[in-house]
Amino acid sequence: MPRSADQAYAELIRRFKDYSTLGSCAAVLGWDERVNLPRQGAGHRAEQMALLARLTHDMLVAPVIGELLTEVEGTTLVGDRESVPAVNVREIRRLYDRAVKLPAELVAELARVTTHAQQVWQEARQKHEFAAFQPWLEKIVALKRQEAQAIGYKEAPYDALLDEYEPGATAREITQVFAALRADLVPLIAAIAASGRQARQDILERDYPVDRQQVFGQAAAAAIGFDFGAGRLDRTTHPFCSGIGPGDCRITTRYNPRYFNEAFFGILHEAGHGLYEQGLAREHAGTPMGSAVSLGIHESQSRLWENQVGRGRPFWEHFFPRARQVFLDALHNISLDDFLFTINQVRPSFIRVEADEATYNLHIILRFELEQGLIGGDLQAADMPGAWDEKFRQLFGLTPPDSALGCLQDIHWSGGGIGYFPTYTLGNLYAAQFMEQARHDLGDLDGDFRQGRFDWLKGWLNDKIHRPGMRWTPGELCRRITGKPLSHQPLLAYLRQKYAPLYHL
Amino acid sequence: MPRSADQAYAELIRRFKDYSTLGSCAAVLGWDERVNLPRQGAGHRAEQMALLARLTHDMLVAPVIGELLTEVEGTTLVGDRESVPAVNVREIRRLYDRAVKLPAELVAELARVTTHAQQVWQEARQKHEFAAFQPWLEKIVALKRQEAQAIGYKEAPYDALLDEYEPGATAREITQVFAALRADLVPLIAAIAASGRQARQDILERDYPVDRQQVFGQAAAAAIGFDFGAGRLDRTTHPFCSGIGPGDCRITTRYNPRYFNEAFFGILHEAGHGLYEQGLAREHAGTPMGSAVSLGIHESQSRLWENQVGRGRPFWEHFFPRARQVFLDALHNISLDDFLFTINQVRPSFIRVEADEATYNLHIILRFELEQGLIGGDLQAADMPGAWDEKFRQLFGLTPPDSALGCLQDIHWSGGGIGYFPTYTLGNLYAAQFMEQARHDLGDLDGDFRQGRFDWLKGWLNDKIHRPGMRWTPGELCRRITGKPLSHQPLLAYLRQKYAPLYHL
Repeated sequence: MPRSADQAYAELIRRFKDYSTLGSCAAVLGWDERVNLPRQGAGHRAEQMALLARLTHDMLVAPVIGELLTEVEGTTLVGDRESVPAVNVREIRRLYDRAVKLPAELVAELARVTTHAQQVWQEARQKHEFAAFQPWLEKIVALKRQEAQAIGYKEAPYDALLDEYEPGATAREITQVFAALRADLVPLIAAIAASGRQARQDILERDYPVDRQQVFGQAAAAAIGFDFGAGRLDRTTHPFCSGIGPGDCRITTRYNPRYFNEAFFGILHEAGHGLYEQGLAREHAGTPMGSAVSLGIHESQSRLWENQVGRGRPFWEHFFPRARQVFLDALHNISLDDFLFTINQVRPSFIRVEADEATYNLHIILRFELEQGLIGGDLQAADMPGAWDEKFRQLFGLTPPDSALGCLQDIHWSGGGIGYFPTYTLGNLYAAQFMEQARHDLGDLDGDFRQGRFDWLKGWLNDKIHRPGMRWTPGELCRRITGKPLSHQPLLAYLRQKYAPLYHL
Repeated sequence: MPRSADQAYAELIRRFKDYSTLGSCAAVLGWDERVNLPRQGAGHRAEQMALLARLTHDMLVAPVIGELLTEVEGTTLVGDRESVPAVNVREIRRLYDRAVKLPAELVAELARVTTHAQQVWQEARQKHEFAAFQPWLEKIVALKRQEAQAIGYKEAPYDALLDEYEPGATAREITQVFAALRADLVPLIAAIAASGRQARQDILERDYPVDRQQVFGQAAAAAIGFDFGAGRLDRTTHPFCSGIGPGDCRITTRYNPRYFNEAFFGILHEAGHGLYEQGLAREHAGTPMGSAVSLGIHESQSRLWENQVGRGRPFWEHFFPRARQVFLDALHNISLDDFLFTINQVRPSFIRVEADEATYNLHIILRFELEQGLIGGDLQAADMPGAWDEKFRQLFGLTPPDSALGCLQDIHWSGGGIGYFPTYTLGNLYAAQFMEQARHDLGDLDGDFRQGRFDWLKGWLNDKIHRPGMRWTPGELCRRITGKPLSHQPLLAYLRQKYAPLYHL
């Protein structure tokens, strides 16, 4: 007797949940590697991770997955494309197709090359020598172009790579939004520079004892709604958030005893990611319906809490009096106005991860254009330093003094992560557009923030963004929530409103 | 062309290493569960652990493992039974046979029953109600008897269970050694009681700040040779040591701010286990040749450092002056003699885990006899409380006031761990016998200890016990190192020598 569509679907979900659960085991090991691993344990950990990667991959590409998908597709079970089964089947199909389309040799070669390339990159950056990294960037670009061909695309090979991080997005759409953003952002940043006003930098570079930063940061994360009964905060070198599974989401940070921003805004940022993970639908855990929809939307949640909320005056009207008590030596003679100006100052700089809210997006636009050139074939790896510096001058009016402050600063390309960068600015754009809508839907959010209350906003995000999981694509989600496609205008409006009083614009 | 024995062996080892590596992933998750897991993450962690258990079991019982074993067995490759291939094939065969002999339904039923039984046991212990636990103990005994039948045995069904923890050991041999031990131990303990001398208990129950205990304990673990570049020390509720893999061995402890012994001797104990794990042959990692040989030998390493070394006068001649500086308030007016008497006092008590070095073994003898009765069919679960109390009176001259201080105190039986208890006293016996030999081989070890030097002893243990892995059975290992089979005499001689001056015997 042939299996019914219901039975096939149940079996598909059972197998996919195993795949997800094994992936979540790797997530535990990955978190542990970056938080706890003894120095000498690195070799064995690499073997463990390689084995888990192989086993999860085998589970996903098992022929039975393809058969089950085929049995279910086209049946009435998935007739309503927004129903739970339809969403799960659509997304499992997407993952399955991506995985089976990639030849095993290409996957192995990419793993081999990027492992080596990351070591070379690290050394090249230290020595400011792009030449050492160049042949590896060439290899990686060639392999990623092969990957794009194997995956397939409608308009541009770059789209096939982008799709891994931002399902359904295309370079064409992003280019349009980024162009509009750039057109408005460059004059805004120029006006800020022309104002001649500067914040007091010394305020943040005082003594902020690490144990106090830890307690204060954890309290702030709890205040915005991160559930420490279902999560942790730990120290690491390169902070991240890991949503291991239901009831277990872990954020990390690093503390600089002489710089306030790094840990505090880092914790808010990671807690924003964490709220997304903690807000996913538990009843759909281990399936696409219970998973984050894209990196761009994920980043929107971190940027929303870090910047839209966490750098705002209402937030600090609540938190600054406490901060002044906790960091008495550093802040006792500092006014809220001075503090707010300092944490919101705009200063063009060479390093992306140190950039402010405004110039940050220019760093992303630069990378987005360059990596499109690499994948499209218009830009050769050998020409990268020149192209980078040229674009940097156009956007920032500055020339990087060396490649460590230029095209060697980021780890992404050495790890094969081409197509990842635009999700950062997509996150900023989505965050502004969602926040504009939340203020419209919920009324006086600033009044909440002044009282240290974040539950209305968190509830709105849970409801509108977290619980839907992958039900809609990022673009559809944006349209459903805000009634409009993604636009640069909310971010621009937000930045203008923020900087006008600070820089007397 | 048929596969050569060499090729079959290589394939067998490749597959077995995958099995070990996946098991080591479960070890990371198990450690994390007991050290880091957020409260709400328990459900998902259980699913992760169940999946890893299923996948590792599937890897071990894959028919190809049996085929590869058959291809290699009987060939010249394994002709020398002490060669690396012979040892690995012998032990993989042992594991494989144990795994395939157990019917899947029995394994599943044991997992189901013991998961539930542990909850029932916990509640029953709290309420001092053996009756609630009794039907579950009955079920577990019935299942373990089935397990013994499925595994097979030569003399007694109990041996089949014992073999899981102590390969090659038999109830008959252990009974002989334990009987001799008991015959000498009971009069020694009686003489100690009759001496009327008592140590100052208050010394240990003073203020020992937790942060200082942590630093002092970690320094002591490092001093005896535990490598913190390849390990960690963390806090947990029920301390343990987890040898995750090469370069990654983690010990845990718990701190009582008003009791010195718990964390300090706990850390030495776990560090002793850790030295074994760190001393295994790295080139054989993931194979039996690079694995610990038995629980009894493992326990010998922890007891050796905790007791033979860590409770001795030479050790404290080095550490006590430092302890007095670190725990100034608690120890400034305490003499080394008083301190040594306190950490070595003998006091019959109801709870095994709180017992001293002498009476501890009576707790084990009691459990060993009772669980043989259960598995042999001479003792019914319903009669356990009476049998326990009767034996306790015989051994200790005391009657437990309730079952929480009697037969409900340990978790082992509720988890299906029947056959595990004797390994604790085997550990004490092996520790004494190895230490006697080490003193014979290395000369003035006490002189080393007085100077805080433990490298000669550690090197001897690495060489004699750790690096051989599973090359010999525990019994063979003992004979090879000490020239004699396991005996109760070294432990008795050690205890007599220790207690004679303390109790004026």
